[in-house]
Amino acid sequence: MKLSQIGELCILEYIRNIFDFKAKEVLVGIGDDSSVIMPNKRNLLVTSDMMVEGIHFDLRFVTPYQIGFKLLSVNVSDIFAMGGTPCYVLLNLAFKRNTTKEFFDLFMRGITDAMNLYHVRLIGGDLSSARKEISTSATVIGYADKYLKRSGARPGDRIYVTGYLGDSAYGLEILKKTKKRIHIELGLRGEKIKAFRGISWNTIAPLVRRHLLPEARSPKKFLKHATAMIDISDGLLIDLTRICNESKVGARIYLKQIPVSPSLKKVSRYLKNKTGDLSLSGGEDYELLFTAPPQKKVNAIHIGEITVSQRVIVGNRGRTMPFKEEGYQHFGIKREK
Amino acid sequence: MKLSQIGELCILEYIRNIFDFKAKEVLVGIGDDSSVIMPNKRNLLVTSDMMVEGIHFDLRFVTPYQIGFKLLSVNVSDIFAMGGTPCYVLLNLAFKRNTTKEFFDLFMRGITDAMNLYHVRLIGGDLSSARKEISTSATVIGYADKYLKRSGARPGDRIYVTGYLGDSAYGLEILKKTKKRIHIELGLRGEKIKAFRGISWNTIAPLVRRHLLPEARSPKKFLKHATAMIDISDGLLIDLTRICNESKVGARIYLKQIPVSPSLKKVSRYLKNKTGDLSLSGGEDYELLFTAPPQKKVNAIHIGEITVSQRVIVGNRGRTMPFKEEGYQHFGIKREK
Repeated sequence: MKLSQIGELCILEYIRNIFDFKAKEVLVGIGDDSSVIMPNKRNLLVTSDMMVEGIHFDLRFVTPYQIGFKLLSVNVSDIFAMGGTPCYVLLNLAFKRNTTKEFFDLFMRGITDAMNLYHVRLIGGDLSSARKEISTSATVIGYADKYLKRSGARPGDRIYVTGYLGDSAYGLEILKKTKKRIHIELGLRGEKIKAFRGISWNTIAPLVRRHLLPEARSPKKFLKHATAMIDISDGLLIDLTRICNESKVGARIYLKQIPVSPSLKKVSRYLKNKTGDLSLSGGEDYELLFTAPPQKKVNAIHIGEITVSQRVIVGNRGRTMPFKEEGYQHFGIKREK
Repeated sequence: MKLSQIGELCILEYIRNIFDFKAKEVLVGIGDDSSVIMPNKRNLLVTSDMMVEGIHFDLRFVTPYQIGFKLLSVNVSDIFAMGGTPCYVLLNLAFKRNTTKEFFDLFMRGITDAMNLYHVRLIGGDLSSARKEISTSATVIGYADKYLKRSGARPGDRIYVTGYLGDSAYGLEILKKTKKRIHIELGLRGEKIKAFRGISWNTIAPLVRRHLLPEARSPKKFLKHATAMIDISDGLLIDLTRICNESKVGARIYLKQIPVSPSLKKVSRYLKNKTGDLSLSGGEDYELLFTAPPQKKVNAIHIGEITVSQRVIVGNRGRTMPFKEEGYQHFGIKREK
């Protein structure tokens, strides 16, 4: 059944029935002109990010579930990157008239699984039709006792990341070549796809998973020590440059300390890129990148130090190379996904 | 110059420079992972609405300025419809790679004029490219001492609207026939277009203006008396039905009391529709529809009463006809814009 056979009002009623909830701090949820919440006294965080068909996802190799899940994850990641706790979400969905009810249900299941994972509740949004391309966005609202800007890094601070870099970009490369949807879901490993150029499914799976179903990283365990933070959405170098620019400092990172997954090491031989390339510039890993004073014990991966102004990568043989921002840019001239 | 020749980072920097501001309640504005505001103790209102090319606007007869202005207006209207004061906005913009810098500048000028009109400040958002269709959305945040739901109407309450109904829908009909952009802007009446089927520009202008450049109505002057409120975005009958459904009541409205502009009366003869039709079901007027107890003196147009359950229109000769929701629905089977 197509959404055009159901009608907006029925779809809204359906969403409202599924997601209705009572909470004393939410005075008005779904179903009125706007939502009303009773804000608590802490800092209120708001972020809003889009996912557009043909730009952020390709329906040939992404399932509706994965679009929904990722839409929440990328927005929650922005709240985490400020040191916040996500609480509420508003969804803007523009689906095509011939979008099926099945597509819609799968999409909403991805949203729901992510909402449960991050303890976030739906309080509003907008539903529209679209002619040619699906366009979605989410606004996530959260709170923070202590929020962390990009501008707090000081010379001498150590630079940390929370996990492997480049996995998502390699996952995307694999998907572009296989052009197949892989039904990875939360708690579901996905059906095995045929070994890719002789590499086993076990090797490929973590890369593809990081691209299709990224889970945002909570900063809770190191938040009290961190001085600046960002999530790596556009690539390590571009996002580190953002911290450097905002903090008016430099950075030195060590290539051999960049965490590269065993899967990426195996797969990189078969793709054009060198191992390092996409771990430095590949986007959408949604790991956190943050800085903390050197005397603090921090449970994350140490990749370098903040300097006064110099911005360099120290290669595996000790040679230093200056780095410039490099990563994904919309309307970018060099790189398009 | 195309946006693809400028690049995302330069565009973001440009936006940040233009819209940067200092306010003690905004701890982090544009340029970090999320915005941080220090909420005050009142009720916090949040709303988020989209405008998608080919659905909400047609570039053949809408200027970029008007898209930007209207995007803000429709979101501010939702805050007003809850009795709130709008304060902040986050913008999500997906433009095509070949979108020109001129288009972008005009769009942002429409946004800016609306921001100034409503005293709203830009605190964040997301910029993306799009392949085939421009897709935009805004999230507006505001506060309310007293907020008004759709569910507060009681039998005996009077029903009011804040202005002419149907103007926007007739304006759209005219634009569909003339297929011309009309450069109406805030404080600018627009160049005259050639008389339309013998009707003068002076007659057409208010209709076209209401469609292209709707100004959201503030409820300030009657807020203290109102019991339920909604903005008329989808048509009087559909939006009145929403109040009735949420309040679990009926309504009686009088056809002769529906405010119809002199322009609409003149133009309706030349279009297929009867005068009444689009004033009852035409969307996008963004007038407020609200209820208030009969003993309260209210400065707005009285169009009927809330009943226990009966939902009727009283015709010009006193005949009553039941009404059902009728207006614009996305994924609607009967009506598509």
